[in-house]
Amino acid sequence: MLSSMKGSPTRQTPAPPPGPGRERRTRAPGDRSRARVLEHAAALATLEGLDGVSIARLAAATGMPKSSVYVLFGSKEELQLATIDAARASFIRHVVTPALATTAPGRQRLQRLCDGYLDYVEQRIFPGGCFFVTAAAEMGGRHGPVRDRVALYQNQWRQFLSDTTRDAHAAHELTTDPDQLSFELGAILAGSDIAAVLHDDNTIIDRARQAIRTRLGA
Amino acid sequence: MLSSMKGSPTRQTPAPPPGPGRERRTRAPGDRSRARVLEHAAALATLEGLDGVSIARLAAATGMPKSSVYVLFGSKEELQLATIDAARASFIRHVVTPALATTAPGRQRLQRLCDGYLDYVEQRIFPGGCFFVTAAAEMGGRHGPVRDRVALYQNQWRQFLSDTTRDAHAAHELTTDPDQLSFELGAILAGSDIAAVLHDDNTIIDRARQAIRTRLGA
Repeated sequence: MLSSMKGSPTRQTPAPPPGPGRERRTRAPGDRSRARVLEHAAALATLEGLDGVSIARLAAATGMPKSSVYVLFGSKEELQLATIDAARASFIRHVVTPALATTAPGRQRLQRLCDGYLDYVEQRIFPGGCFFVTAAAEMGGRHGPVRDRVALYQNQWRQFLSDTTRDAHAAHELTTDPDQLSFELGAILAGSDIAAVLHDDNTIIDRARQAIRTRLGA
Repeated sequence: MLSSMKGSPTRQTPAPPPGPGRERRTRAPGDRSRARVLEHAAALATLEGLDGVSIARLAAATGMPKSSVYVLFGSKEELQLATIDAARASFIRHVVTPALATTAPGRQRLQRLCDGYLDYVEQRIFPGGCFFVTAAAEMGGRHGPVRDRVALYQNQWRQFLSDTTRDAHAAHELTTDPDQLSFELGAILAGSDIAAVLHDDNTIIDRARQAIRTRLGA
């Protein structure tokens, strides 16, 4: 599962082969434009939903001609799917990678993941809070590739929490049922995100931190 | 607070003065049409968001002329606000009233409220799960009367959970910090709703029931 949280999204722009120290400079102009559109798109989606992510809207937001955004993505659906992939990359960068880099598997990593998630909400990396909570709430009950992509990544997160909780349990760092515990951690994180953003009240994040600490016996 | 969960929504169609046994028969045709539109609107909002609730959309869904829907509501925003009020009435009918009718204040009522909420999600009273979770996720980070109405009612629910938890604490039925506990109950309920609906997996509801039982020592 670690590999699926750390690995490539389902589709990705093929990267140019990197030369030593040249990774940034060799990035094609199309890739830079794409990245710029997707950064706006992911932020917009947390405020106005993935439904609000359209080629016309992103052209207006970035000042690029509609035809250029169209050339980069081809359709609203492809733009939405690429937006979800970009949000996943951001989530990994802000929440997953720091935990993997600084902790061994087990309880410490689980604590770091939850803390990292709550920091990511508190700092409003996306203006509407956790991209995947708003996208999950929007896409729940629907069908199609956009819902499927959101569900895939949300499931990877659940699985990652579950695997890390099992590691902690196997190392006798936690005694509670790991599947029940990882469910509760995930639900508390998502439920806190919604309330903290709706009421713009970060004391709700502090409540979540307290709940996690108690759960993990830290 | 009980009064605010049980009481009238912020705005409401004025009801005709009821005569003995005539409450139903004296309901004006306009009220019936309004109720029919709002039932469709609340269900639609849980699948396509409050943004998807428009006069044209509801005319198509109910088979009424657009001009008639316009006469009933006047604007998209008024239709959205009336939809939120109707969803609140449904929530009170399905979740709050049964708990008030069958339990005294305290732990039993808290358990019944949480069970009632999870039943309401499991039975998909609204096809996209809890109306107020999807609406809160959609409106989080926005400004305006629609966001304010959602936040008002979501806050009433939080306050109702909090007051009921304090009642249980005051009666020595629970020993944990009531504010922390009511926060955790609310977060677990909302977080479970999102995941259960996204993955169409009601075993997630069972996990939530287990979490609530453990929290309430039942």
